[in-house]
Amino acid sequence: MISLRPLAVFLSLGVTLAAARGDEGMWLFNAPPKEQLQQKYHFDPTPQWLDHLQKASVRFNSGGSGSFISADGLAITNHHVGADTLQKLSSAEHNYLHDGFYARTQADEQRALDLELNVLESIEDVTERVNAAIKPSMNADAALTARRAIIAQIEKESKDKTGLRSNVITLYEGGSYQLYRYKRYTDVRLVFAPEQQAAFYGGDPDNFEYPRYDLDICIFRVYEHDKPAHIDNYLKFNSAGPKEGDLVFVSGNPGGTDRELSLSVLTDARDRQLPQRMAVLYRREVNLTSYSERSLENARRARDDLFGVQNSRKALKGRLEGLLDPPIFEKLQADETKLRQEMQARAGQDAKFQEGLAAYDKIAAAQAAIIKTAPVYDYYERELGFNSTLAHYARLLARAPEERAKPNGERLPEFRESSSDSLELQLFSTEPIYDDLEELQLTDSLTDLTDHLGAEDPMVKKVLAGKSPAARATELVTGTKLKDLAFRKKLYAGDSAAIKAANDPLLNLTLLIDPIARAARKTVDTNDEAKQQAYAQIARARFAIKGTSSYPDATFTLRLAYGTVRGYEENGKQVPAFTDFSGLYQRSAEHQNKEPFELPQRWIARKDQLSLGTNFDFVCDADIIGGNSGSPVVNRAGEFVGIIFDGNIQSLVLDYVYDDAQARAVSVDSAAIGEALRKVYDAGPLADEIEGKTK
Amino acid sequence: MISLRPLAVFLSLGVTLAAARGDEGMWLFNAPPKEQLQQKYHFDPTPQWLDHLQKASVRFNSGGSGSFISADGLAITNHHVGADTLQKLSSAEHNYLHDGFYARTQADEQRALDLELNVLESIEDVTERVNAAIKPSMNADAALTARRAIIAQIEKESKDKTGLRSNVITLYEGGSYQLYRYKRYTDVRLVFAPEQQAAFYGGDPDNFEYPRYDLDICIFRVYEHDKPAHIDNYLKFNSAGPKEGDLVFVSGNPGGTDRELSLSVLTDARDRQLPQRMAVLYRREVNLTSYSERSLENARRARDDLFGVQNSRKALKGRLEGLLDPPIFEKLQADETKLRQEMQARAGQDAKFQEGLAAYDKIAAAQAAIIKTAPVYDYYERELGFNSTLAHYARLLARAPEERAKPNGERLPEFRESSSDSLELQLFSTEPIYDDLEELQLTDSLTDLTDHLGAEDPMVKKVLAGKSPAARATELVTGTKLKDLAFRKKLYAGDSAAIKAANDPLLNLTLLIDPIARAARKTVDTNDEAKQQAYAQIARARFAIKGTSSYPDATFTLRLAYGTVRGYEENGKQVPAFTDFSGLYQRSAEHQNKEPFELPQRWIARKDQLSLGTNFDFVCDADIIGGNSGSPVVNRAGEFVGIIFDGNIQSLVLDYVYDDAQARAVSVDSAAIGEALRKVYDAGPLADEIEGKTK
Repeated sequence: MISLRPLAVFLSLGVTLAAARGDEGMWLFNAPPKEQLQQKYHFDPTPQWLDHLQKASVRFNSGGSGSFISADGLAITNHHVGADTLQKLSSAEHNYLHDGFYARTQADEQRALDLELNVLESIEDVTERVNAAIKPSMNADAALTARRAIIAQIEKESKDKTGLRSNVITLYEGGSYQLYRYKRYTDVRLVFAPEQQAAFYGGDPDNFEYPRYDLDICIFRVYEHDKPAHIDNYLKFNSAGPKEGDLVFVSGNPGGTDRELSLSVLTDARDRQLPQRMAVLYRREVNLTSYSERSLENARRARDDLFGVQNSRKALKGRLEGLLDPPIFEKLQADETKLRQEMQARAGQDAKFQEGLAAYDKIAAAQAAIIKTAPVYDYYERELGFNSTLAHYARLLARAPEERAKPNGERLPEFRESSSDSLELQLFSTEPIYDDLEELQLTDSLTDLTDHLGAEDPMVKKVLAGKSPAARATELVTGTKLKDLAFRKKLYAGDSAAIKAANDPLLNLTLLIDPIARAARKTVDTNDEAKQQAYAQIARARFAIKGTSSYPDATFTLRLAYGTVRGYEENGKQVPAFTDFSGLYQRSAEHQNKEPFELPQRWIARKDQLSLGTNFDFVCDADIIGGNSGSPVVNRAGEFVGIIFDGNIQSLVLDYVYDDAQARAVSVDSAAIGEALRKVYDAGPLADEIEGKTK
Repeated sequence: MISLRPLAVFLSLGVTLAAARGDEGMWLFNAPPKEQLQQKYHFDPTPQWLDHLQKASVRFNSGGSGSFISADGLAITNHHVGADTLQKLSSAEHNYLHDGFYARTQADEQRALDLELNVLESIEDVTERVNAAIKPSMNADAALTARRAIIAQIEKESKDKTGLRSNVITLYEGGSYQLYRYKRYTDVRLVFAPEQQAAFYGGDPDNFEYPRYDLDICIFRVYEHDKPAHIDNYLKFNSAGPKEGDLVFVSGNPGGTDRELSLSVLTDARDRQLPQRMAVLYRREVNLTSYSERSLENARRARDDLFGVQNSRKALKGRLEGLLDPPIFEKLQADETKLRQEMQARAGQDAKFQEGLAAYDKIAAAQAAIIKTAPVYDYYERELGFNSTLAHYARLLARAPEERAKPNGERLPEFRESSSDSLELQLFSTEPIYDDLEELQLTDSLTDLTDHLGAEDPMVKKVLAGKSPAARATELVTGTKLKDLAFRKKLYAGDSAAIKAANDPLLNLTLLIDPIARAARKTVDTNDEAKQQAYAQIARARFAIKGTSSYPDATFTLRLAYGTVRGYEENGKQVPAFTDFSGLYQRSAEHQNKEPFELPQRWIARKDQLSLGTNFDFVCDADIIGGNSGSPVVNRAGEFVGIIFDGNIQSLVLDYVYDDAQARAVSVDSAAIGEALRKVYDAGPLADEIEGKTK
């Protein structure tokens, strides 16, 4: 599935721009592909059409997209985007993730523990103001500091003035800075989720495959002042769904693409980053699977983590396969070579072409410095060596008072004032924490840390404190008081001295590694800044050669994609665009109804009542990537006709290059949603509200 | 489980001797622990007692141990040792591995495809003859050649003279060379196997754990001249099983231990070898699990491979945990330091002490050379990059004519005349080969090869031939003719020119990598020889200090271990020595009868007829390790009272150091075997034969 999971985010490599082909593009709402839509589809999106779709789109902080579908605050996303909330609301007694949930009345709706929804309200170009703060005399380190300061200042001013969440977004790697203002919803309540087996039918084997038979939806309602929020811009629900050949639009938040990375960085992704990330995912998958098999309760506890790991593993495998495919890598090489030749040919005309050429070496040098720091950075700063919720709390708590003591602009971005709400939401979550799972994951990650940095490394020895990884993990998890929310709140309200005085084993550990972790981060951030400046130089040269009518790489901000509902050819056979309910029953029968192809009980019982010819899932060739999960699919009239939940296996290479021969986005059909809500889940009132029949 | 799986073998690191404590020791049959047995147990094993047990013990070439239990050739081992045969005899129509098998008549017994059983007939000391061939003036390379030549000559002479399989075994790392002569049985037929779910109840979660409820047995019959072989030395079956506190003996083939490795080699195991092997196992486990989940037929095809990978993963994880446990590693460090100090103290007395001291540096230098060559050696020579049965056939076929052209003594050991029977058994196996599984595994291992050696490496580029790993694997597997047994036989009968002329894609690939693979092997073999000479120098110094009354590290040859049937304490609770049938039903109920804790249908149906208080599995503190799987457990009277099938999780560290506080060997009780054969499997006639009631 194409949600934005932590490890996938971790891998996002950088951002630049691309020249669009076919139905390519993750377009900015303030620079839509008007020409392409006019030429190919004779469609002209009006400013009103765009504004409505923008404001009906929501971003989930759990790593996905969604949309409003009723005036009373109903927001739909994927089950796998809601899964984090479903897991956190579950216990040994009621397992909403596994069994599903339906609130028959508003009183039954369950408040999510740490979910935040953002709606993009306005965009302001702040490029000139940011650039004015960077003096040509500054080195990368000084430029980074100056940039952070001006961005923090712009964000704070905006938040103080408007009360809206305000984030400065870097586009075209510094070619453009845009202030995005979001309305935040933090009282988000669970209304409906099907059983995970219906949402994720076919499990890991069918993930990133097509044909599919998944009802991957989850419905929330946003509240304000303890009442359902009134939503002006919500999508009208089209109960018929789309037809083959229809033009459709996808409005969502693609997490990150790497389509214009320099070859030195791509090569590192292929040779080091992706294989190393895969190795971590492989060990975590085995570890969680092995834990899950020990008991049904273990399986419940680890379910969402395991899904996330499997999903990332399959996604990264697809990306690595793309980079290891000579035609693809050679195309990327040829593109860079061609651009460099074009710069070379113009090198006498303008300094920007020489700068563009020189930028490639700067990127390679910065990447080499990052590679050198990577082990320490990954295992200490990015917490690969400390895979534990409690350890992460310790990190945030230990750093918060230190960072708060600095001027806002000099803080690490996650501790800036503009991020404080989100930080507190995360830190004060009441999600259940299971000692055994914490110990398991901490043991494994401490072992991995030791494997990578060496058992004789002085810092590793201090981290393990003379114990085996397993014994140390047990000591840390059983010894810490960070499970106690009140304790976390008290520490967060205090200062650095209070953190030290707490003498908590996990806090002590995080203080121990903090200097080495911060130093590694400084190195990486400074070199990222150097890369960013170099990419901006390449972008300027490219603009001068090719013009600016394109879209920037994805940044988990709102984008508009478009495409046609259509199937594709695979191994000489045509894969149709649509599946229907009857296909679900057929697939189950082919697998003797065995896991992960077993039908949920409710679907067996209600088979006779279902209209089996109803379209279930469908594919289109819109340009999507992880983070687009839950994005609404709308028709020309701006009506909701489906919801993105996956890309097929051929789409995984879209991270690097768009392709419409086989790569497809996979959606649940709106027709299936209405039919299933009414006939399988007895959720007629909810279906009525969505279909506008109650008001 | 403690069978000897290929990846576990691969990890075996070296061999020296240890000083025994408690019930420690994997003793040679010609140097049994008489003193210890007399002192602690007042037991004196007579030569007749030892000879009978030795000749009733069998070694399985699939990586385990076993014993004769009837005059008519019945041989019992573990289900997981027989699994390789069960898998190879199965098809989509009949799945013996999953469903079990019982031949009601001898005519129904199914011949194994490539199984070889060896019975140790005699032992001859050839130390002087081997040592005489090595001149002091020889460097490591020349010494290796000379040693190989004399060993090959001794083996050939013995085989020609006796007709027996003859192997020179290196003990005490060159302190001793022994000629072991084995009677071979190659017509081995399957008689009985329970369902895998009964044999491996609790699956991966319960593997290496205790308490257990597994009927891990598989019964074969050896034939000669198409008739059941008459066996003089078979074990009398004791239907009552052992009692708490009983002295018991284990006669089997421990695969390898690493109890006296030099610290430089142990450190390398901890820091490089084990983590790298684990990484390969993690990726293979995920890959096979993911394949298996796609369909029931896939699951069947991958079952045995997946089991092997999971088993090795759990075993190596336990070993790594041991080395990462400071008390254990510090003990190993202290032992070496102490021995070196003792040599130092005697350095003026005799040259052997100076040589012993100098040997540590020689080992470290040789190990450093091995580490440098390891990536090429592992991925090309050890075929980590070519994980495919067909690719392995290609390797054997391409090398066979080249090696045959050399004098016997100069060949690689697996191509010596003494190994030709076993080589042909392997190469001409009719085991089913599945293209999809071959492609899956070859794709993954080619990807791993590329990750490790680099996509731009010239040899890697030649191996991939301009294609992605997936495309290349498909091309190789679909293009080769090596699936055809007749084709393999024809090639094997021919010469090197015929191999080249075949123009088979897999043969061409193996020829391409052969020079680099052979060169890496040469480097590793030469440095292993240097290590061996150095270890022998340490051994000589140690003999002079501590005497020789001990046992050598395990070498997958017959050893005698002994111990007491007794439970242990864990987390403050006493774990009893025995489980019984009622515990099986209880465990299933606790897990709602869900996989991997579901009861086989037959066990549900026959519950009422079973005597539920019958002992099922038991533990003792005998010193065992991988390869001991299937070893008979006998009482003072030499009667069969159980069969080893596992060690508990605390026993995994036995590879490095013996411990009897918690480490235990796990066996099926003979009482459970009789009861289950009669009452669950309706195999009364077989039970009668085993219990001696038919003759």
